[in-house]
Amino acid sequence: MTEPAPVFTSGIDHERLTSQLRFVLEVDKLKRVLRRSLLIDGARRENSAEHSWHVTVLARVFAEYAPEGTDIDHVVNMLVVHDIVEIDAGDTFVYDRAAVRSQAERERAAADRIFALLPEDQAAWARSLWDEFEERKTPEARFARAVDRLSPLLANWHTEGAMWQQFRVSKDDVLENVKLIAEGSKPLGAYALALVDDAERRGYLGRG
Amino acid sequence: MTEPAPVFTSGIDHERLTSQLRFVLEVDKLKRVLRRSLLIDGARRENSAEHSWHVTVLARVFAEYAPEGTDIDHVVNMLVVHDIVEIDAGDTFVYDRAAVRSQAERERAAADRIFALLPEDQAAWARSLWDEFEERKTPEARFARAVDRLSPLLANWHTEGAMWQQFRVSKDDVLENVKLIAEGSKPLGAYALALVDDAERRGYLGRG
Ligand SMILES: [Ca+2]
Repeated sequence: MTEPAPVFTSGIDHERLTSQLRFVLEVDKLKRVLRRSLLIDGARRENSAEHSWHVTVLARVFAEYAPEGTDIDHVVNMLVVHDIVEIDAGDTFVYDRAAVRSQAERERAAADRIFALLPEDQAAWARSLWDEFEERKTPEARFARAVDRLSPLLANWHTEGAMWQQFRVSKDDVLENVKLIAEGSKPLGAYALALVDDAERRGYLGRG
Repeated sequence: MTEPAPVFTSGIDHERLTSQLRFVLEVDKLKRVLRRSLLIDGARRENSAEHSWHVTVLARVFAEYAPEGTDIDHVVNMLVVHDIVEIDAGDTFVYDRAAVRSQAERERAAADRIFALLPEDQAAWARSLWDEFEERKTPEARFARAVDRLSPLLANWHTEGAMWQQFRVSKDDVLENVKLIAEGSKPLGAYALALVDDAERRGYLGRG
């Protein structure tokens, strides 16, 4: 854990600011968490911080494909915090069944530690965003999950299925995975299916 | 430019979706733009995409230090798009005077090209966010600029001034640079000044 500079600023609650700084410094570590997907140009693996940014762009650009009335600002807020737990829990590869089984517990422990760095009111706010994202009960959470799944699907198609091949991900696996996209957005779900079919035709998918 | 997959999805305006995908794929390149600042742990230089994410976290966490009535959702929207122009224009080091002189023109050309990839209505929306950020006339823009400056200041302090030393950035340069923080947030501006004083005491600053 990185301790904030011990500098005092008059007129600010010092303890509160120190807690906020501790959180802001801690989450910088998300830039070091590598995901199982490549950049669109295939140059290297993507990290979870830059991924978090990219999906906020997707949420904005594809907003019109969310169900009517979806609060996109709220979607963006969820996406900003959604991967922070990976600082402790690591990125869980969706096709790694053993990792997925232990994922919930590992991530909950991470949320308990990391969000609690914030002052209590803000910790509760960040935690509730993360819980909402995980529970997928609101249209906002479902749409956030949809763009979170669409982004690596695009990366996979544009790198000719590099990660699908490397980790032997079959068409059935991918179809199971992209179901979440249709849950959050019918049009994006339909696009995802068309993309998977096209990927199969081109031989981008793994042999399972 | 990366062309989207030529797949057709029924019930969606194909041309519109293709424009949106073209933009989403293009902005992925922001992950390849390196800034003149290190990660908090000093491990490597930061890229502009992960930086864009980190400042959205700062905007949320430090929201209470914005002037009353500041719309933080709008601040976050600005921060999501604010660095996209760097895909063409590159990151401009604030202490490189020649680069700063040509920056506005280079970035305007970039904005003209990149935002125009979007459908017209969305291009106008993204461009207006970027213009607002650049013009610094609204409290939202000034607060966005404040957190955008605070983030590298934290990184510099926590890496014992690594970039200040390497590029011989003096205390006067840094003080000039952090003025924008006080313009967006008095409390964060005061904190920034205290941090710079502390950095000087510790010998983190360059010799100019
Ligand atoms: Ca910036």
